[in-house]
Amino acid sequence: MRNIKLVLQYEGTRYQGWQKQESTANTIQSKLEAVLFKMCQEPVALAGSGRTDAGVHAYGQVANFHTVSQMGLKEMMEYINRYLPEDIAVISIEEVPLRFHSRLNAKEKIYCYRVLNTEVPHVFDRRFTYCVPEALDVEAMKKAAEYLLGTKDFKAFTSAKKGKKSTVRTVYEIAIERIGEEIRFTYKGNGFLYHMVRILTGTLLEVGQGIRQPEDIKQILHSGERKNAGALVPAQGLALIQVGYDIDTAKKS
Amino acid sequence: MRNIKLVLQYEGTRYQGWQKQESTANTIQSKLEAVLFKMCQEPVALAGSGRTDAGVHAYGQVANFHTVSQMGLKEMMEYINRYLPEDIAVISIEEVPLRFHSRLNAKEKIYCYRVLNTEVPHVFDRRFTYCVPEALDVEAMKKAAEYLLGTKDFKAFTSAKKGKKSTVRTVYEIAIERIGEEIRFTYKGNGFLYHMVRILTGTLLEVGQGIRQPEDIKQILHSGERKNAGALVPAQGLALIQVGYDIDTAKKS
Repeated sequence: MRNIKLVLQYEGTRYQGWQKQESTANTIQSKLEAVLFKMCQEPVALAGSGRTDAGVHAYGQVANFHTVSQMGLKEMMEYINRYLPEDIAVISIEEVPLRFHSRLNAKEKIYCYRVLNTEVPHVFDRRFTYCVPEALDVEAMKKAAEYLLGTKDFKAFTSAKKGKKSTVRTVYEIAIERIGEEIRFTYKGNGFLYHMVRILTGTLLEVGQGIRQPEDIKQILHSGERKNAGALVPAQGLALIQVGYDIDTAKKS
Repeated sequence: MRNIKLVLQYEGTRYQGWQKQESTANTIQSKLEAVLFKMCQEPVALAGSGRTDAGVHAYGQVANFHTVSQMGLKEMMEYINRYLPEDIAVISIEEVPLRFHSRLNAKEKIYCYRVLNTEVPHVFDRRFTYCVPEALDVEAMKKAAEYLLGTKDFKAFTSAKKGKKSTVRTVYEIAIERIGEEIRFTYKGNGFLYHMVRILTGTLLEVGQGIRQPEDIKQILHSGERKNAGALVPAQGLALIQVGYDIDTAKKS
């Protein structure tokens, strides 16, 4: 048995998100599993590092699958890319130890949210950005972001229903930079809850517009109530950039 | 009567090029004229700086139209962008003297052709680049490009049928730069013939692959025969970047 790790890119525009669903075959995972089935001549279960929602993009999603196929890695990558739609691609492939699991071993994720701070529509960025024409105070947003760093209960910043699962996560870094007319939010953490990056961004944007003060973040966190946080910004501005692992993925041979 | 100058961006993927056609309404010019008709409540003839082919993009196409409408410029731009499809946009608007004509007064055009020099498909650049996996010698291509500079008869580098129109053009600059896995060709000239940028790029790529020598360009130019030049590369890699004018477009009031 071999364990194959894939790094994937996709434009999420056309898909109902990463996760396989009973109601539709139009997900990234379904498209990939269909090609892997064809290639391996056996049903293949592909494990992703985590879900991405409908419309969210990925520059470095990680997934892995087990197979008895003896096909070479380069040949596999060419095969998969030949049969995948052109908005999904494998950008690297490697064989890893059987114990490697792309979700369970993920230690760090980087997400990026792109805002266009202009009234003029951007033809070439339209599928990858969210347009906010109002003036935005980047310094105020940076101040607010500081309250979000560290290990905290982010219950107020998720759309997930209350359950037994922990809503505690560690956010290592939030970078907010203005690049021309674009404001780019980069989040690095050990993991993110359902809708968390988009609600964090929506809340920071309200601080940027002066609707909230930076120190309001403390109370929102403390309340644990979704209704106290800001709006959920659209999926199209979001991309999963990178997934980090601290286990050695080199195959022991 | 007022003369309105527009600077336009569009992604050419979905369209049959710039130019209005009898056989289809699916051109950039048709889409724009339909919105202008609605806005001005009168038929509007939009003059572009030149045609772009099906699939070719624009970051700075220029067009102008005459109208008796008294609508303000900001209002016009908002109106047009509201009714245009999201892959076409007006990025600036100004009122210019009546004698200004976007094609007749164009003195300089800049086109860019983007090549991805890799085997791995690029999900996010797929609509804007042409993939060439073979090794490319950038220095050889730069040497070949030098033979193309200046005022010359480019008859060998156009798909246009022989006619009475001059095929002499002046190319001021050809920049070829490697940016990561991308090789970007930028052409600056007083004008370009039908398919000229794509045939120039196809020929330079053959030099880059060692199929031709840089000095072969001289003979190709001299022959005036299309069959001696290189392949026509796909439209998707091409974009019209900028159109320059040397007349003062500021309206005398």
